[in-house]
Amino acid sequence: MQVAIYFFICVDLSLALFEVPALFPLPFLATSIAEVLCLTAFFGRLVHFAKVTPQMVFWKDTKNICIMVTIVLTLFDLIIYGSLEAVNIHSIRWSRALRPVFLINFPESRQIRRTFRSIRNTLPDILYVFLLFVFSVLIFSLMALKLFGDRGLQTVEGSPYFTNILEIAFELYVLVTTANSPDVMMPAYNFSWWYSLYFITYIIINTYIFMSVFLAVVYNNYRKHLKNEIRKLAYLKRHKMIEAFNILKVKVGTEFVVMEARWKQLARIVMPHISGPHLELLLRISDEGQKGHVDKMNFIRLADLLNIQVVTINIKRHPLEDWMPRVYQSSASLLVQRMVRHRIFVWVYDVIILINAIFIALDEKNPFISYAEWLFLSLYIIEILLKLYTYEPRAYFGRKQFWNWFDTLIIIAALVATVANTTIQSARKYNSQQILDIVLILRILRLLRIIVSIQRFRLIVTTLINIGPTILTFGGLVLVVYYVFAIIGMEAFHGKVQFFDPNFTTPNALVCGNPALKDSAFARDRYCKNNFNDLASSFIVLMELTVVNQWHVLAGGFALVTHQAAKLYFIGFHVVVVILIVNIFIAFILEAFFVAYSLEKSEVETAIEKKIQELGVGIQEEEMQDGKLVDNMDAKDSGFSGDDGDNKRKALKGLYFRIASKKYRTVDALLQQMFESEIAPEDEGPSLDEILNFSPGDVYPKNPNFENSA
Amino acid sequence: MQVAIYFFICVDLSLALFEVPALFPLPFLATSIAEVLCLTAFFGRLVHFAKVTPQMVFWKDTKNICIMVTIVLTLFDLIIYGSLEAVNIHSIRWSRALRPVFLINFPESRQIRRTFRSIRNTLPDILYVFLLFVFSVLIFSLMALKLFGDRGLQTVEGSPYFTNILEIAFELYVLVTTANSPDVMMPAYNFSWWYSLYFITYIIINTYIFMSVFLAVVYNNYRKHLKNEIRKLAYLKRHKMIEAFNILKVKVGTEFVVMEARWKQLARIVMPHISGPHLELLLRISDEGQKGHVDKMNFIRLADLLNIQVVTINIKRHPLEDWMPRVYQSSASLLVQRMVRHRIFVWVYDVIILINAIFIALDEKNPFISYAEWLFLSLYIIEILLKLYTYEPRAYFGRKQFWNWFDTLIIIAALVATVANTTIQSARKYNSQQILDIVLILRILRLLRIIVSIQRFRLIVTTLINIGPTILTFGGLVLVVYYVFAIIGMEAFHGKVQFFDPNFTTPNALVCGNPALKDSAFARDRYCKNNFNDLASSFIVLMELTVVNQWHVLAGGFALVTHQAAKLYFIGFHVVVVILIVNIFIAFILEAFFVAYSLEKSEVETAIEKKIQELGVGIQEEEMQDGKLVDNMDAKDSGFSGDDGDNKRKALKGLYFRIASKKYRTVDALLQQMFESEIAPEDEGPSLDEILNFSPGDVYPKNPNFENSA
Repeated sequence: MQVAIYFFICVDLSLALFEVPALFPLPFLATSIAEVLCLTAFFGRLVHFAKVTPQMVFWKDTKNICIMVTIVLTLFDLIIYGSLEAVNIHSIRWSRALRPVFLINFPESRQIRRTFRSIRNTLPDILYVFLLFVFSVLIFSLMALKLFGDRGLQTVEGSPYFTNILEIAFELYVLVTTANSPDVMMPAYNFSWWYSLYFITYIIINTYIFMSVFLAVVYNNYRKHLKNEIRKLAYLKRHKMIEAFNILKVKVGTEFVVMEARWKQLARIVMPHISGPHLELLLRISDEGQKGHVDKMNFIRLADLLNIQVVTINIKRHPLEDWMPRVYQSSASLLVQRMVRHRIFVWVYDVIILINAIFIALDEKNPFISYAEWLFLSLYIIEILLKLYTYEPRAYFGRKQFWNWFDTLIIIAALVATVANTTIQSARKYNSQQILDIVLILRILRLLRIIVSIQRFRLIVTTLINIGPTILTFGGLVLVVYYVFAIIGMEAFHGKVQFFDPNFTTPNALVCGNPALKDSAFARDRYCKNNFNDLASSFIVLMELTVVNQWHVLAGGFALVTHQAAKLYFIGFHVVVVILIVNIFIAFILEAFFVAYSLEKSEVETAIEKKIQELGVGIQEEEMQDGKLVDNMDAKDSGFSGDDGDNKRKALKGLYFRIASKKYRTVDALLQQMFESEIAPEDEGPSLDEILNFSPGDVYPKNPNFENSA
Repeated sequence: MQVAIYFFICVDLSLALFEVPALFPLPFLATSIAEVLCLTAFFGRLVHFAKVTPQMVFWKDTKNICIMVTIVLTLFDLIIYGSLEAVNIHSIRWSRALRPVFLINFPESRQIRRTFRSIRNTLPDILYVFLLFVFSVLIFSLMALKLFGDRGLQTVEGSPYFTNILEIAFELYVLVTTANSPDVMMPAYNFSWWYSLYFITYIIINTYIFMSVFLAVVYNNYRKHLKNEIRKLAYLKRHKMIEAFNILKVKVGTEFVVMEARWKQLARIVMPHISGPHLELLLRISDEGQKGHVDKMNFIRLADLLNIQVVTINIKRHPLEDWMPRVYQSSASLLVQRMVRHRIFVWVYDVIILINAIFIALDEKNPFISYAEWLFLSLYIIEILLKLYTYEPRAYFGRKQFWNWFDTLIIIAALVATVANTTIQSARKYNSQQILDIVLILRILRLLRIIVSIQRFRLIVTTLINIGPTILTFGGLVLVVYYVFAIIGMEAFHGKVQFFDPNFTTPNALVCGNPALKDSAFARDRYCKNNFNDLASSFIVLMELTVVNQWHVLAGGFALVTHQAAKLYFIGFHVVVVILIVNIFIAFILEAFFVAYSLEKSEVETAIEKKIQELGVGIQEEEMQDGKLVDNMDAKDSGFSGDDGDNKRKALKGLYFRIASKKYRTVDALLQQMFESEIAPEDEGPSLDEILNFSPGDVYPKNPNFENSA
């Protein structure tokens, strides 16, 4: 069901590829049928929702209202557009800009909604800074008009310099983005040395100070709201667990508890595939005294317990050892294994990678070098095979063994692509460009492995990889904003600028097919391909606008082919994407790194993790890496049999709790843990209504330490 | 003495203005004599130091060693250069780049040194990220070479595209700074849509993620070191106070105390100009029970007590009231005063300012408008006079009444300049351009006053103004770095690029007097005035490089006229200034705003402030603003006479403790206060050696809360 909805959302969004202006044109009838189909699917989903949730809740949820309104508006727009089209009047399909509403408002996109909420909450604070900033730009514009307007200065292009207040304000806004520095200053600077002071002052105040203030405001709000949401989640979880406890509780002695059987039943309902020993272990942790029942405090922990990863494979021996123990344990085999585990093995391969890099940089026309490529490829394959021989394969390809996966995939892909290319080449005497490109990229990506060898690099990269999933959330957010702007941009600018083959030098090709662009910076820089003629091109233009540089040239070009007011579109995009979204992105990366850094120093451990460690059934993620894994297993195993008695050992055999290593945790998870360790175990938290109405401001008085702790 | 040293430092630094390549050329003999004079002064200062400090301390201080070595090196360089010059061989005056050493190493520049120390400490962390970043750029360069090198693509200028690995690496480095986006992408994008993915990936990884990581690393270190320094200071202060206490203590009863007379003596030595009632008040706070002696805890507070601002003027009446009470208290006068204090008065003037803004924006050629200017000027003068009539002038011009000062200075300056201009105009029928420019700027700056009327704006602006002093520290830091780079740049590039009047269009003028620049982007953009021909021009070029945009054009231009290796100079500047210094600047502004925001919510008050409030002798800074001031004084005054008895009132008459308003505190002061409120009053802190050897890492385990509290 969820997959189906995502499929329909994708179809709905990608319709823009096929509608006029299209990358792959399809008749209006086809796209409109597809759209109606999608709308039906969304409506069906909504009806299903309405059935399973109580009426009150359903109608109170703005998500559902949003979707419904959007469906109606889209249908309405489709009908109008279709009937006008039938009588050959071309109108605007404005409802296309509403399509991302479906992506945002379906319950699966909680993360994107959260970011949107965070942006919405930041708006009031940003607004005041923004107004002040606009005021400052206007004051400076007025000054510039008075200072430079009557001087008769000219820009490099020969147009009059700073004579119109609106143009000045636009130029100065562009200067804030640094995109026209130092060109905007040169005419005045050429005229007199002193006028540069005006621009320096402007840059310090508006570019440096105001832009930092924007970042500060966005960051501050981001942090505040993040913490508020997490606090809400933590209290909500606790609240629900207490409710569940109150339903299941029975009185034993003086206290209320949940009986063991009930507890197990519940766990099995929540997690149907839980294995026997796993459940046994959880129970042991929850019911310390083995009294046959679980008290309130331990019951509340159930959700966290179930979230802890359990690895059952680690203690297993290498499959080869099982299949042919004599060969695997022979002295030659052991020597190979010791070799592979040795540091020098890693170093040798680092050297090989470096030599490989030099070979890649050299010209590959030389046949010797292209043969060397085969040598390197086989060396890498041998490495992987040796490692698989030495380490337990399932541990080697563990879920979090990012670099092993990376290595293997790159090598296999390179092997496949190289073989494919050679086959095509020998068969048809022709190199497939696409495959060659892919082989090339794969070949170079292999060099990345050298990072793994340096501990400091690995740390930074691991943090970056952990940020990955949330960066995808940002991807979703950016997609939504880009989509809306792309649709508007296509409606406004499509067809105004044409791209001709770069080798064309006809006058028409030089002005991108639009005479209005004659002598413009847009045509001079050959930006003809930066147009809004289809969705893909629009996205690339928007990406360029996000990078900011030369955005005024793009804005100027599109303003020339349409109207000066078109600049507002580009300014709006800058404000929304660069000032808001990019700053949130930076704030997020800052926060993630701060958490990572502070964890290097301090220890944040939940009660559950402590308990697991006490029972001696925890494994640090670090220990699972490469060579150390099996050795450690052995050591622990032998330790148990001596000290801890049979009962424990039985439960443990072949089963360990893996405590997620700190470096693999997401910011959210870390903050949640930090907060939970602040709530006293007995604290039942505020009432449900209070929880749902938490405002970010509340964080401060109630939990000053927490607010400051990240 | 301090002033003299600063004077000599200024002279020494400004020598670069007069030396070849000079803004104002002076013969070598003159500048070298001036330099020797400065060196003598620095040496004299050093000798003086050596006399007043113990030998051991003096020789252990790297500051002194640095200065000595620099003096010797400079003399050495001067002699070599002079003698070579005598036989007409031109050599390099390399020691000029060392001049900022004097600025950094004299004890008065503690702030700049601190920032340098912070940068030095950040280097190791930055280095690893930087290496990873360089590695990533190289990998991408290799990929680009392989992907695009053989395509035969051309840039807009017609040069081959991405064929040389070094050039690619430079172009990709420039892309990280966004300065050549999207131009660098266009040829590949024009060739095939798919290649844009390469650039998008590159930009996401290197421009967005790596640059944010740099900010994160710099920020994290900045915060860590800031806190460490402040912790050190706080403990050092306490340590010294305890030492002083141990010297002065006598035993009274069971505890050691300092007698009242001794305490007063000490306070008078530390602060010779302290007034009688002020000292009395401090004693009352320190010796609560009036036992005639001060105990240890209260003694330790002495330094903080002395730092609290005391205002004695507030309770005074308006001077006019003293001079002619009948007139001032007459009903007409009171009506005026009430009017001025009324909100509508502020609103009326806001409207006047807005109308003024419109008039400024209109063309001033119209005589009616130029008369209106006189009207506005007189309206503003009347406003200030009315306010001075209503409010006590010394309170109105209080030390922290930034906006009142701002208003008055702007208006007086505008008045003087306008009158001067009119005089010159009527006498010689000629407008002085400089004066006109100044009048214009003043006229527009007056519009800033509208900010004061909006509470939200005032808050942001006040925070910005508070950051002011520390921004000056950054100014010093930037000056040092700029100076070194400017000297190197002048040695390397002076005279290579000539500036001709912009109206010259001879072929020579179009290539900035250097044929090597023919067809270059540098000449095409008319950047001839961006040269290193004198110190002022160099600074402006460096400023443009700091802003980043088009820096590759500047780098390319100077590389053309000298050597490709010249690009290293520009890359080095980018790494030092943009990656390090600008990020520290942003980190500083972020921190300042976070502190300001968190103070809006939480209350951080030291014990002393609480005590002052308890005694009822505190005034909030806010109360001192404009109208509320005198009213509040009266209210408090009458309150005292009723409740608090004569003794207190006597001490208080005409004397209040002003508790520095939170919004006027610097980040440093705030952090120090936060930290001090964390140390228990009885805590004597670690030993002196321990304090001096605090490392930033220690902050974490010992004071987790503090570390996180900002």
